[in-house]
Amino acid sequence: MSEQWLAPKPPRLSAVEMTEVVLPNDANPLGNMLGGRVLHFIDMAAAVAAIRHAGNPCVTASFDSVDFLTPIHVGEACILKAKVTWTGRTSLEVYVDVHAENMRTGERRHTTTAFTTFVAIDPVTGKPAQVPPVLPETDEEKRMFQEAISRRDERLARRSHKQ
Amino acid sequence: MSEQWLAPKPPRLSAVEMTEVVLPNDANPLGNMLGGRVLHFIDMAAAVAAIRHAGNPCVTASFDSVDFLTPIHVGEACILKAKVTWTGRTSLEVYVDVHAENMRTGERRHTTTAFTTFVAIDPVTGKPAQVPPVLPETDEEKRMFQEAISRRDERLARRSHKQ
Amino acid sequence: MSEQWLAPKPPRLSAVEMTEVVLPNDANPLGNMLGGRVLHFIDMAAAVAAIRHAGNPCVTASFDSVDFLTPIHVGEACILKAKVTWTGRTSLEVYVDVHAENMRTGERRHTTTAFTTFVAIDPVTGKPAQVPPVLPETDEEKRMFQEAISRRDERLARRSHKQ
Amino acid sequence: MSEQWLAPKPPRLSAVEMTEVVLPNDANPLGNMLGGRVLHFIDMAAAVAAIRHAGNPCVTASFDSVDFLTPIHVGEACILKAKVTWTGRTSLEVYVDVHAENMRTGERRHTTTAFTTFVAIDPVTGKPAQVPPVLPETDEEKRMFQEAISRRDERLARRSHKQ
Amino acid sequence: MSEQWLAPKPPRLSAVEMTEVVLPNDANPLGNMLGGRVLHFIDMAAAVAAIRHAGNPCVTASFDSVDFLTPIHVGEACILKAKVTWTGRTSLEVYVDVHAENMRTGERRHTTTAFTTFVAIDPVTGKPAQVPPVLPETDEEKRMFQEAISRRDERLARRSHKQ
Amino acid sequence: MSEQWLAPKPPRLSAVEMTEVVLPNDANPLGNMLGGRVLHFIDMAAAVAAIRHAGNPCVTASFDSVDFLTPIHVGEACILKAKVTWTGRTSLEVYVDVHAENMRTGERRHTTTAFTTFVAIDPVTGKPAQVPPVLPETDEEKRMFQEAISRRDERLARRSHKQ
Repeated sequence: MSEQWLAPKPPRLSAVEMTEVVLPNDANPLGNMLGGRVLHFIDMAAAVAAIRHAGNPCVTASFDSVDFLTPIHVGEACILKAKVTWTGRTSLEVYVDVHAENMRTGERRHTTTAFTTFVAIDPVTGKPAQVPPVLPETDEEKRMFQEAISRRDERLARRSHKQ
Repeated sequence: MSEQWLAPKPPRLSAVEMTEVVLPNDANPLGNMLGGRVLHFIDMAAAVAAIRHAGNPCVTASFDSVDFLTPIHVGEACILKAKVTWTGRTSLEVYVDVHAENMRTGERRHTTTAFTTFVAIDPVTGKPAQVPPVLPETDEEKRMFQEAISRRDERLARRSHKQ
Repeated sequence: MSEQWLAPKPPRLSAVEMTEVVLPNDANPLGNMLGGRVLHFIDMAAAVAAIRHAGNPCVTASFDSVDFLTPIHVGEACILKAKVTWTGRTSLEVYVDVHAENMRTGERRHTTTAFTTFVAIDPVTGKPAQVPPVLPETDEEKRMFQEAISRRDERLARRSHKQ
Repeated sequence: MSEQWLAPKPPRLSAVEMTEVVLPNDANPLGNMLGGRVLHFIDMAAAVAAIRHAGNPCVTASFDSVDFLTPIHVGEACILKAKVTWTGRTSLEVYVDVHAENMRTGERRHTTTAFTTFVAIDPVTGKPAQVPPVLPETDEEKRMFQEAISRRDERLARRSHKQ
Repeated sequence: MSEQWLAPKPPRLSAVEMTEVVLPNDANPLGNMLGGRVLHFIDMAAAVAAIRHAGNPCVTASFDSVDFLTPIHVGEACILKAKVTWTGRTSLEVYVDVHAENMRTGERRHTTTAFTTFVAIDPVTGKPAQVPPVLPETDEEKRMFQEAISRRDERLARRSHKQ
Repeated sequence: MSEQWLAPKPPRLSAVEMTEVVLPNDANPLGNMLGGRVLHFIDMAAAVAAIRHAGNPCVTASFDSVDFLTPIHVGEACILKAKVTWTGRTSLEVYVDVHAENMRTGERRHTTTAFTTFVAIDPVTGKPAQVPPVLPETDEEKRMFQEAISRRDERLARRSHKQ
């Protein structure tokens, strides 16, 4: 698996916007969207960004901690935006931002944010595959890229701690 | 149900982007996404645009004819964009454009387009509710608005024909 | 792909009846069945008729315009009847008729009708496969067969217009 | 809950035909339809016949023993026919017959049969509701009605045994 | 397919506990869990016990009669326990016990019990595969094993009767 | 909302075991279970433990970071164990442990662990409701309870950081 040069890609080329309407089966008897359904949508949005950036299938490696700030109700829309924020040799970090929207009033409430990581997989060998480096462009992308180092250190620390 | 003045809204305020990953249960044994699943996603995207514009719940009234130009495969993404193109007193026309995307290569294929109509419903009375007029802004929006008259005439003609 | 002679088949040999109970996840917060779910069921019923007639897998090529005449409610049944109305060399037209039924009172309401087209696929080559000619038997089948020519012309016209 | 006279109904007025296409999520990794999915479809078909006959919501009370004679494969159709065979004061027996169909070859294989019982429920009081007597018409319906007595005795025997 | 010696296994090595929360789509409009959904969960729990015991994929062969003693409501939990009770050469009997639980009050109601049978399948040949003999340990397991002979005789009798 | 005395409960009274079979729609085209589906099951298992302990409906407040250590494949079982580890006045921490199991070989692989928090809700007022204190019994439960203080401090720190 020799190293090859892969052209850097800016986050906007793989950015994702998803809109999901919350149906009855996504909610508990109080009519609040189940946390696990939100996490499922976050995973799908992040996976699309990861695969687009990597040019290969990607599998979820981790979710950083997630706080659910406000409930989402049946009949509301769930708006997700995903963007690649950092890349390693075969792994990627994807940031996802989630808003609940009352479609009738237009009111949007910030619901949660998540940092997820994925590993790119070579579909032939089934082994991790090299990913193109991410090229942050905006100030916010540059800041998130800078801060990714400390998030990565925390992940390595907690993983060594767990095993 | 006296007429009230409702401020016109441009299409961009209710425009929708949806990204769906095609899962095994969305496809036939050849691995092609079922046409009915595509239509279901079109209906969801259009409904979000309609409800946002109307500020009320909306129910699907019609789909104009739909052609499936290329197949979509399991593991690909289905990208939908919906926009309000015309409004009547209590009804709206929503245009939806669908692309299939091979997320790994970035190749996007135009799959289908659809013109759908919705009726806004007053949630208290259950009767049709007045909708704000749409205010087309771009040249394409103005053209689609102009052409909506003939699409509406065709719908009225075929409905009188059917009954 | 040389032409072979295939024995004609009457529509009754591939006719389909489907009964679906509307569950909460099929409906919007007003309790009305989502239009896209109705279209999904129409596609499934039509596909069964098409595959039965063709003796090969079939993929959805188009839906003619569809009007939703009355809402269907959660807890009601959705009754679909599908029948092959016309055949080309490798394509078929299938007519689907949908009624909503209040199972308790027996009241049935005509909800919608749809003309769909499918293309038969050779499962080995993945290319379009020849289909047996349809042999209309009843007066209604003969009328629908006659009228299919003009529906086909409209489809060809709108497709050339779109591209 | 005084007894009222309800007009007898023949089984054909509530008979049901259901056609379901077996999708990947309905099957195990061998590609065979899961037994529990077949039972779910049987329950839905029987419930429609029961509600139509009773004119009230109905809840499943029992399934007699069920044997799965042949496997059903992903991509095949599952054809269910349900018919009311016997009625008590507030309960009904519904017979369901299931065939697997290879839609391409037209081959149909008898998969299973089931006798189910339902109790009609008054939607206001939530208590069991009287059902119209069934009026068997064909020889087969008369035979099944006759034999229902012994099936009912077996059910009563096993229920007293279980408690 | 010569007979080989397979080491006997006690039921506890393959016993299963499943907990499912009843969601809106699992229920009828009265809010009662559909009987067919209960049977689907029973089939899944039993299949896990069967596959664990057999060390091979297993397909459902039969369900003995099932009585639904009490309704389960949306928002309640459905608790299933499955255990292998008897083994033939290539078939297994699995007992499943189902309770409804009101998670807030802790009240548990006995809902149903089921005896199911499975056939082990050799994944290479697709033919029935020999299963290890079950080794009942507790008094209840020994009793169920003893009584399995008469349940098996009943199944053979009804199958010969049906064909 | 005056403080009342609620009898402490040990974790074993609300502990949960869930067994889920991974179906095709739970997986990506490589046949690996989607991370978001694992998180959905974790949320369901944790919610059952939380509701049982609280005696009230509970909504997900947060997930601590989650690492996916090994992939889970279609056709495998996913075994989840959930236990309440700490309680505040109206919130609970629930620990969930996930294993993948190859049901045929019996091989179990540790897949992930998660610490989740929930808030109990009074179903009448919709406001947070007091929860009974958890009473750790085993050495492991006591250790997890001790360590919960630092996990809670981290959550408070990151939440103040985010806002």
